[in-house]
Amino acid sequence: MKKQTTHQHGGNIKQFSQEIHCPIEEVIDLSSNINFVKPKINIDFNTLNISAYPNYDELYKAIAKLYNIKISQIELFNGATTAIYSLFRELNLTEVTLYSPCYLEYKKSAKLNGYYLNFIDRFKNIEQEVKENSLVIFVNPSTPDGKFYDIKQLMEEWIKKNCTILIDESFLDFTPFESAIPYLENYDKLYILKSMTKFYSSAGIRIGTILSNEKNILALQKKEPLWKISEFDSHYLQSALSDENFVKKSRKINDEHREYLIKILENSPYIEKVYPSSANFVMVKLKNIDAPTFQKMLIPYKIMIRDCSNFDFLDDTFVRIAVKDSIALKTLEKHL
Amino acid sequence: MKKQTTHQHGGNIKQFSQEIHCPIEEVIDLSSNINFVKPKINIDFNTLNISAYPNYDELYKAIAKLYNIKISQIELFNGATTAIYSLFRELNLTEVTLYSPCYLEYKKSAKLNGYYLNFIDRFKNIEQEVKENSLVIFVNPSTPDGKFYDIKQLMEEWIKKNCTILIDESFLDFTPFESAIPYLENYDKLYILKSMTKFYSSAGIRIGTILSNEKNILALQKKEPLWKISEFDSHYLQSALSDENFVKKSRKINDEHREYLIKILENSPYIEKVYPSSANFVMVKLKNIDAPTFQKMLIPYKIMIRDCSNFDFLDDTFVRIAVKDSIALKTLEKHL
Repeated sequence: MKKQTTHQHGGNIKQFSQEIHCPIEEVIDLSSNINFVKPKINIDFNTLNISAYPNYDELYKAIAKLYNIKISQIELFNGATTAIYSLFRELNLTEVTLYSPCYLEYKKSAKLNGYYLNFIDRFKNIEQEVKENSLVIFVNPSTPDGKFYDIKQLMEEWIKKNCTILIDESFLDFTPFESAIPYLENYDKLYILKSMTKFYSSAGIRIGTILSNEKNILALQKKEPLWKISEFDSHYLQSALSDENFVKKSRKINDEHREYLIKILENSPYIEKVYPSSANFVMVKLKNIDAPTFQKMLIPYKIMIRDCSNFDFLDDTFVRIAVKDSIALKTLEKHL
Repeated sequence: MKKQTTHQHGGNIKQFSQEIHCPIEEVIDLSSNINFVKPKINIDFNTLNISAYPNYDELYKAIAKLYNIKISQIELFNGATTAIYSLFRELNLTEVTLYSPCYLEYKKSAKLNGYYLNFIDRFKNIEQEVKENSLVIFVNPSTPDGKFYDIKQLMEEWIKKNCTILIDESFLDFTPFESAIPYLENYDKLYILKSMTKFYSSAGIRIGTILSNEKNILALQKKEPLWKISEFDSHYLQSALSDENFVKKSRKINDEHREYLIKILENSPYIEKVYPSSANFVMVKLKNIDAPTFQKMLIPYKIMIRDCSNFDFLDDTFVRIAVKDSIALKTLEKHL
């Protein structure tokens, strides 16, 4: 059981509800970065044939269409974290450069696979020279702050240094910005990761995608087992992707609610700085209060937020707060 | 896309239906070894909350209860094949001994991880001396024939030779025989694999289990990503496991249908020998006809069976035929 580790990531509503002795339905979860806007799902899961082995042809087609890419440039995994673990293992390089703070599983996976770790502080020193031949990890928009970076110059530097590059675009669909996909044509050692579950509001389904050129994808596939993804999950995502209004609608609502959240935070006496975000979460630096105390202050209102102190280059004066529905944000406003 | 590989395993109904130009619903699939008896599922999948991250506590509890084992002795994977790949990788031994024929993914996984392969022919030479310190793979009941072995003496030999042992009991729940679980108390280097999807009629859900001692399980967990299993799949299996009559009912029906299938096969002029089976499939040696011709002969009746020629120690005179419902078996009977 991995309770502790899960807790480090936020989103463990069950444990939180047990700790504060309240029904799980009453928890206001501002700790996890799952889209609170949900796609329309036009499928009756009770009628799916799950006896047979899954066939992923239609799912691959739908994802290829979504990102305007060839099926042969896609490999699916049972979740973005599984994709990260597989990629680190298969690439089997000696050094990694983590533009940090970033999603914690990168560091964990790098350590497990014996990589030497180099960190670059995105906030203070993003132009720091990158380690030659290393695996560059860049999350865009970033976590836990949600900033989108124009990576044109960085790409040039990474390519010059012969790096293998992973751009994690798990939150890009929340933004109007361009993907790094076009760079696949110009550079061989580029991988793009898309967690399909953040934007499509489905952490309970396990699908993550790696995009690259055909040669790289073939090399990954060779080491992968058959049948990695649940038939239920495959159909959920296909149905979600067929909701044609969802991308536009979801962006609009999240934009509005993020603006509202930022206003709440900017007006709070507990907050020193609100960081810019294009994603569905906002990072703040606290004022005269530390993250655990701030978390405790919100417990009576059943509000759960993310302490960011376990991220590199951050300390216990940073928290992440998710963009959620109006009721949740109004409750937060009342108590900040 | 892995069409070809999937085809090698049987069960690719979609491809078969396309090749013979018939609707997928009309295919009589006797090629895949998924239980045709289904558990009662008392759950409305449409109401599940799949936005939140999954919590597997209840699923682990249910599996611990099923096999009368501690939660800390269980690690779940998204399918038995993923479990096999992970185990070969994590154990990182130099040699494997495959009691063959056996499930083909063992050989593939061993090769991918650079193991030196030793084969022992179960049919002709099961008492052959085992390679010292090797990873022993023993599928019980075996595939593709379904024979159950009393492994007491083999275990003694393997332990004497300091082998690491994997007993694959993916089809044991079809039989009344004892699991190797009690050996976990006596020998440190023992792993037991249970594919949860064969017996519980759910190849479309991806759950496989490795059982071992706590130390071994902890070592495996350390290298595994969080959130491997779909919330849908977790609930399907929990519901299936709560159907208390299923084990008994499923065994009774499969026993009766297997007997009927064996009678059909023994009366056929195309069949030289029917191999003993305790599982939900039967292997036969053909007479005066090879597997591809035999398969072609059954195409007009939309019957799909498994050519066993890609198994070690078997050739194109062997096929596997699954135990299925009466209509399917009667159709087979008519044309054999």
